Amino acid sequence: MTDVSPLQTPPQDPSADDHSRLAKLTLRRVLIDTYHENVAYMHRDCEIYRAEGFKALSKIEIRTNGHSILATLNVVDDHNIVACGELGLSKAAFAQLDVEEGHSATVAQAEPPASIGALHRKIDGERLRAEDFHSIVQDIANHRYSKIELTAFVVACDRDELDREEVFFLTDAMIAAGRHLNWHETLVVDKHCIGGIPGNRTSMLIVPIVAAHGMLCPKTSSRAITSPAGTADTMEVLANVELPMGQLQDIVRTHRGCLAWGGTANLSPADDVLISVERPLSLDSPGQMVASILSKKISAGSSHLVLDIPIGPTAKVRSMPEAQRLRRLFEYVARRMKLSLDVVITDGRQPVGNGIGPVLEARDVMQVLENDPRAPIDLRQKALRLAGRLIECDPDVRGGDGFAIARDILDSGRALAKMNDIILAQGSKSFDHHQPDLGLLTLEICAQTAGVVTGIDNLQMARIAGLAGAPKVPSAGVDVLRKLGDEVQVGQPLYRVHASYAADLEFARQACARSTGYTIGSAADVPHVFVEF
Amino acid sequence: MTDVSPLQTPPQDPSADDHSRLAKLTLRRVLIDTYHENVAYMHRDCEIYRAEGFKALSKIEIRTNGHSILATLNVVDDHNIVACGELGLSKAAFAQLDVEEGHSATVAQAEPPASIGALHRKIDGERLRAEDFHSIVQDIANHRYSKIELTAFVVACDRDELDREEVFFLTDAMIAAGRHLNWHETLVVDKHCIGGIPGNRTSMLIVPIVAAHGMLCPKTSSRAITSPAGTADTMEVLANVELPMGQLQDIVRTHRGCLAWGGTANLSPADDVLISVERPLSLDSPGQMVASILSKKISAGSSHLVLDIPIGPTAKVRSMPEAQRLRRLFEYVARRMKLSLDVVITDGRQPVGNGIGPVLEARDVMQVLENDPRAPIDLRQKALRLAGRLIECDPDVRGGDGFAIARDILDSGRALAKMNDIILAQGSKSFDHHQPDLGLLTLEICAQTAGVVTGIDNLQMARIAGLAGAPKVPSAGVDVLRKLGDEVQVGQPLYRVHASYAADLEFARQACARSTGYTIGSAADVPHVFVEF
Repeated sequence: MTDVSPLQTPPQDPSADDHSRLAKLTLRRVLIDTYHENVAYMHRDCEIYRAEGFKALSKIEIRTNGHSILATLNVVDDHNIVACGELGLSKAAFAQLDVEEGHSATVAQAEPPASIGALHRKIDGERLRAEDFHSIVQDIANHRYSKIELTAFVVACDRDELDREEVFFLTDAMIAAGRHLNWHETLVVDKHCIGGIPGNRTSMLIVPIVAAHGMLCPKTSSRAITSPAGTADTMEVLANVELPMGQLQDIVRTHRGCLAWGGTANLSPADDVLISVERPLSLDSPGQMVASILSKKISAGSSHLVLDIPIGPTAKVRSMPEAQRLRRLFEYVARRMKLSLDVVITDGRQPVGNGIGPVLEARDVMQVLENDPRAPIDLRQKALRLAGRLIECDPDVRGGDGFAIARDILDSGRALAKMNDIILAQGSKSFDHHQPDLGLLTLEICAQTAGVVTGIDNLQMARIAGLAGAPKVPSAGVDVLRKLGDEVQVGQPLYRVHASYAADLEFARQACARSTGYTIGSAADVPHVFVEF
Repeated sequence: MTDVSPLQTPPQDPSADDHSRLAKLTLRRVLIDTYHENVAYMHRDCEIYRAEGFKALSKIEIRTNGHSILATLNVVDDHNIVACGELGLSKAAFAQLDVEEGHSATVAQAEPPASIGALHRKIDGERLRAEDFHSIVQDIANHRYSKIELTAFVVACDRDELDREEVFFLTDAMIAAGRHLNWHETLVVDKHCIGGIPGNRTSMLIVPIVAAHGMLCPKTSSRAITSPAGTADTMEVLANVELPMGQLQDIVRTHRGCLAWGGTANLSPADDVLISVERPLSLDSPGQMVASILSKKISAGSSHLVLDIPIGPTAKVRSMPEAQRLRRLFEYVARRMKLSLDVVITDGRQPVGNGIGPVLEARDVMQVLENDPRAPIDLRQKALRLAGRLIECDPDVRGGDGFAIARDILDSGRALAKMNDIILAQGSKSFDHHQPDLGLLTLEICAQTAGVVTGIDNLQMARIAGLAGAPKVPSAGVDVLRKLGDEVQVGQPLYRVHASYAADLEFARQACARSTGYTIGSAADVPHVFVEF
């Protein structure tokens, strides 16, 4: 049992036969959602539990039908959950075994995953080699790490612990552990933002613009992790985003673009597992951010990527030197991976657009596509500039011409037509952005003093929208009515909170009472625009 | 909900009343042992789950009856575990609420524990202040940290991350979070080993010796964490070790000593929680080791401590410079805490005594106390030297006289008489060390080549004894028959494995096949004795 066999292959280690001599337990699915952690449940009185010397939270190896998984043991004292002689498995763990309930399995004390030695070297501050990262990432992707081990890896790799060579190794290992898409074209473009800016839904404008230009842009997006809406959540207001891979590929071939959820694509399974501990810790170190983003883009078959790094006092990146450091790290790893990368540092001082939350953001996007006079200008401008940069990846486009081409596509209605094609192809939902279905419980936060808006806290606005219910309640969120530099009088509304449940509105109200997220001052106090591009 | 109220006190924050307006759930105990982590279970279809926008693994705050706890949410799809309208709580979490099943409770999204900011600063490599450690340790002791947050703290504080001032702060914070014992005497002695050496049961000899000398020695010990036996496990072969605090204090007053399990004493509750992640990670950084050991000793009321740091190629400490560094850290923190500390660096090249496992170790201890000619000399000598150092804390004893006094107490049978008094007082168990009840399934590992024993791997011997069933099966373990420097012929047994279950013996056999733990060579290869004392 030293060398635990990988998933989906028959056991290969010399002691494999010993499992057949061990007592058997009957498998039972325990309908507890432990997210990405494999948990096994055994009754305290079960003879095998007693005989094997297992301890609560110890790692056990489960074998059945040629498969082998590791799981963390929870001891149970309730026969309704598992009886003696049964082995309960959490939903995630059960799914990996590919057998029916009632099948028999053997259990043994697990040897630690092969990569634990490398993990300990990283905890001790050592530099790891390519093969160490491959071994760790494979174990993570195969669910062989417990939540505790995952956390140890994430924390040990945090800020300043990975050098750029290691970030390249990690990226490469993440790609190797997942699925690769091949579009059989030389130019496959994509766009990504490192996140942190509410309302920043430029992808839903850029994809139809560049696809209308004829470029292949198979955009898969994430759902919100800690934010009040991800692109997938907002797109879901307009269309189905959970598409089988075959259908997604058909849509991309037909329409040159899509706006789908990437969760089913299995492009970087280790990254999906790591998020389960990064999210509760709010950890997002440069090395892991670069590896996570670039591994997914490269696995998705992109050849050219435009990357948006917003900076501002409440953005993820708060100073120009920090943004430049991050840019260099992205560029180094992209070059090693042969991905053509164009980093754009953007204004992240405040939310982009007006709406924060899926329905509100979908409204903004459709207003821009329809050239509606109410459309938020900042969202339109930012999308055009980024789309322009992508269009300039086209060898037939002269440097500097991209913006005008993008604007022409948008103004002419070709972007809207392309978006409607994509929506129809993915499966459209009924949505009228002229009368969006917003949460009916509302709350307006008004200025307490007259002056000029000098600050809008991205984090607090995201928090308020989240407490109001977004993204789980798509109609919930915050409608921003005043932006940086706007003059306000006492009592004028700064933003409106929408919720669908009284408790949610109450949570949001309490958050607003602690901090509105706005500062009002004089025009001179509006922070410097970090970027003009 | 910003300032979450501490356990056992009524809510104090301004938003407390808002909980009374929230929908109520009925509490249910879910008999799953999640060790020290609070886990809450809600049905996926429960309206409150849906309305509140909770996510799997998100942290929720539960309030009932003036109590408030945080828990990690697991989503359940089985009405037999929790039904809609019910809130399931793991055993550990339920116990903290001090209410009956069926009681109602409110839930809300939890604000992060107050100390999360400090945790993030430590992850970023900052030096923390005393108040940061107090805040973190209080949150840990009050079960407000998830397993993920605990792991992040442990890893961030690992090797070289805490300076000695921070270790002092951490120690002080751990003491403040627990119970303090006061023996109302000026001289309260204790002895501790940093661990890692199998069979090293000197405490069970030192306590009766120094108590027979009249010194107060209220020894509380741990059970095995990763080792095949802790002092509490071995003492439990002879006597009851789980004593209510009142009885324990009575025994100490009457007999000047005890050998009890410290788990019920609540001396350093944060440390008990941290062990739940340190154990699976096998992490034991110097800072945390010092804080853990010294906080428990000081909380237990000790004024004088002799600390044993064994060094050897497979001990926790592997070089003299490392041992000296650790000694200085212990001494610095002890001086800040006004604990009189005597650090003894000892020979950790091999197991101490012959037996590894509760029954085998109890046999060795009783042989030494009875001056049995079969008694292991190394165990006797080490115990006498450490006891001598403790006896020299007595102001009436001249420096250098301790060893002779200890030897006289042991040789005269006074130590045995004292041990029998303590065993009787704690509640004796039937144990005949002349015919110890050893596991009947045995396996002898024999020398493959002739020569001299030049190495015995502490870790491998502990591992084999653990796989054989120790400490859960007290009669299981390893009986060491040859020690360093002993000559062996081909086929002569090196050690004997005892087990009570066939599967255990099989696991141990496989481990022995991978590595016996022994190296045989020539007399010149026996490693240098690091220490003579």
